Amino acid sequence: MLTNKVTDLLNIKYPIIQAPMAGGVTTSELVAAVSNHGALGMIGAGYLTADQMREQIREIKKVTSKSFGVNLFVPTKFTVSFDAIKSSNETLQSIRDELNLPPRDQVVLPSYIEAMASFEEQIQVILDERIAICSYTFGLPSNEIIGQLKEHSIIQIGTATTVQEALEAEKRGMDLVVIQGIEAGGHRGNFINEFEESQIGLMSLIPQVVDVVSIPVIAAGGIMDGRGLLASLCLGAKCVQMGTAFLTCVESGAPDIHKEAILHATEDQTVLTRSFSGKWARGVKNKFIDETQPHQLSFPDFPIQNTLTQDIRKVSGSQKNLAFMSLWSGQSPRLAKSQTVETLIQTVMAEVSNLKQNL
Amino acid sequence: MLTNKVTDLLNIKYPIIQAPMAGGVTTSELVAAVSNHGALGMIGAGYLTADQMREQIREIKKVTSKSFGVNLFVPTKFTVSFDAIKSSNETLQSIRDELNLPPRDQVVLPSYIEAMASFEEQIQVILDERIAICSYTFGLPSNEIIGQLKEHSIIQIGTATTVQEALEAEKRGMDLVVIQGIEAGGHRGNFINEFEESQIGLMSLIPQVVDVVSIPVIAAGGIMDGRGLLASLCLGAKCVQMGTAFLTCVESGAPDIHKEAILHATEDQTVLTRSFSGKWARGVKNKFIDETQPHQLSFPDFPIQNTLTQDIRKVSGSQKNLAFMSLWSGQSPRLAKSQTVETLIQTVMAEVSNLKQNL
Repeated sequence: MLTNKVTDLLNIKYPIIQAPMAGGVTTSELVAAVSNHGALGMIGAGYLTADQMREQIREIKKVTSKSFGVNLFVPTKFTVSFDAIKSSNETLQSIRDELNLPPRDQVVLPSYIEAMASFEEQIQVILDERIAICSYTFGLPSNEIIGQLKEHSIIQIGTATTVQEALEAEKRGMDLVVIQGIEAGGHRGNFINEFEESQIGLMSLIPQVVDVVSIPVIAAGGIMDGRGLLASLCLGAKCVQMGTAFLTCVESGAPDIHKEAILHATEDQTVLTRSFSGKWARGVKNKFIDETQPHQLSFPDFPIQNTLTQDIRKVSGSQKNLAFMSLWSGQSPRLAKSQTVETLIQTVMAEVSNLKQNL
Repeated sequence: MLTNKVTDLLNIKYPIIQAPMAGGVTTSELVAAVSNHGALGMIGAGYLTADQMREQIREIKKVTSKSFGVNLFVPTKFTVSFDAIKSSNETLQSIRDELNLPPRDQVVLPSYIEAMASFEEQIQVILDERIAICSYTFGLPSNEIIGQLKEHSIIQIGTATTVQEALEAEKRGMDLVVIQGIEAGGHRGNFINEFEESQIGLMSLIPQVVDVVSIPVIAAGGIMDGRGLLASLCLGAKCVQMGTAFLTCVESGAPDIHKEAILHATEDQTVLTRSFSGKWARGVKNKFIDETQPHQLSFPDFPIQNTLTQDIRKVSGSQKNLAFMSLWSGQSPRLAKSQTVETLIQTVMAEVSNLKQNL
């Protein structure tokens, strides 16, 4: 079960994918270390321009000959509500004051058309650089794009939070699907189901998906060690995707205070919020979440809210002030360790061997 | 791993406990069938009087010589808010009209003191009838009661939703602890952590609890088959507690329309609500939940809200009208089957054997 069609397909030794965490976590060092040690490294390219993506891909190619993947955010339609923007700006004002940030009178908001154009530039880089594996979050691209990547034999991976979304990924031609349990850190990947309908624990989600979907399933959410890996395989997944476990590794680009926040957090301290970006995401509770929580349902959609909070997150980070940063984490922070990628992967696989013998 | 200290302690062949579902589900036929087929049957005695409990215990003793357990609701302090009662009655009025039920001008509300007296009567029955295993939901009883049961060598099981609650169960002398993941159907068992902090998926919760707590852990929530059982053991649990899987068995006392609702539900259709009872609980979405959802935070605490909705649930059930019944279910309804207890238990154990060989 440990080496299977999926490890063959992804050309990896172990059924482990490093989750493509966007926003600077997936440094070239991290991605290369993961791929060099037998798992699949992934660039979280959601917030990168095509040029930044190309640059990082070339950098990684210099330090590993192993395959690695790239994850893209599929642009989603969103509503520009001036009331929502006003509500957000009003709520954020006291935080801006505290950080000595000017009020947000003018802001350049992204448009869906611009986002689509950027996405197509990113796709072109995937094709030009002959990337072996491309995964998608927040939905699936057009049939045309999916077909283009298929022609180039690029393996495509969808992200789903429910059976219905996994079925859609299969129907639209994905080779594999990541199913994201409610345990997962960072952004929720639901794209058909509403947020309320897509909060399903992996213990329930994995078997219900694999019973219905024919493509191989990758389990994601709260998996940190050999116990989580073997449990996911028992439930029917063929591979796992681990985020938080890699985020606290020394090679990850997450700020040290973000890593420390996870290393000191407990399982009851992560929370789902839409205050940072306009999409629901899980992170360690802090002052920003507490203060914005009562108003979060009135904030604008992603990526508008993300733009409105950008300077707050940036300044808070540069001041090494946890209070207003997005401290993404899954529900298993007690299992996080500060270690190298090599140690993490080797420990996970040793745990799996031990566990199997004692079952 | 399959027979272990816990199966020895509970005197069962298989590491499976039938969840003590209150409200008529755990018929004597169900409990006896479970115990007779190698797992642990449990009476959900939360809503039973001491006399009803004694009667059922004696009935079960006639049809099984195997050990079985009883679960009690530990009375919790609650606030009587007239505003909350008014809000609830106003919201429920349109439902009462639809069911031709009279308005609720007067209602006999339970008091904490009465609930405590009833609880102590229940404990006396446990002692008198020499019940082998007693589990608690919604908290833990007094040290005096715990000590009394210990003197009689009764095995006591706490219910926890977080590491902190599991530690408290251990500290207070529980022999084992059920940890309830967010996947679980019916009432949430949180008693120290707030609802918002205690929504943790089993993939995260089991390993984080077993790393810290010394007493054996029983996993509960969304576990329906051999995959879930073996996955729970991989994560560090010693035993599982299954609710929904037993609820749809032919021996269970759940109304047929409740069973059918689960058998036709999908994983994205269960939801957490406090509208039925004043405590958060998971069930299949229906008209009652939809209509009360916007107001649920203003409803009174358990058990007041439970009393206020009692006639609605009863009449809805007797009219075989799903719309206003509490259709408790975990997050894995796609895995539910209409079958006998014997078939369920044998299938689960056969699946475990097969899975172990293919790992």
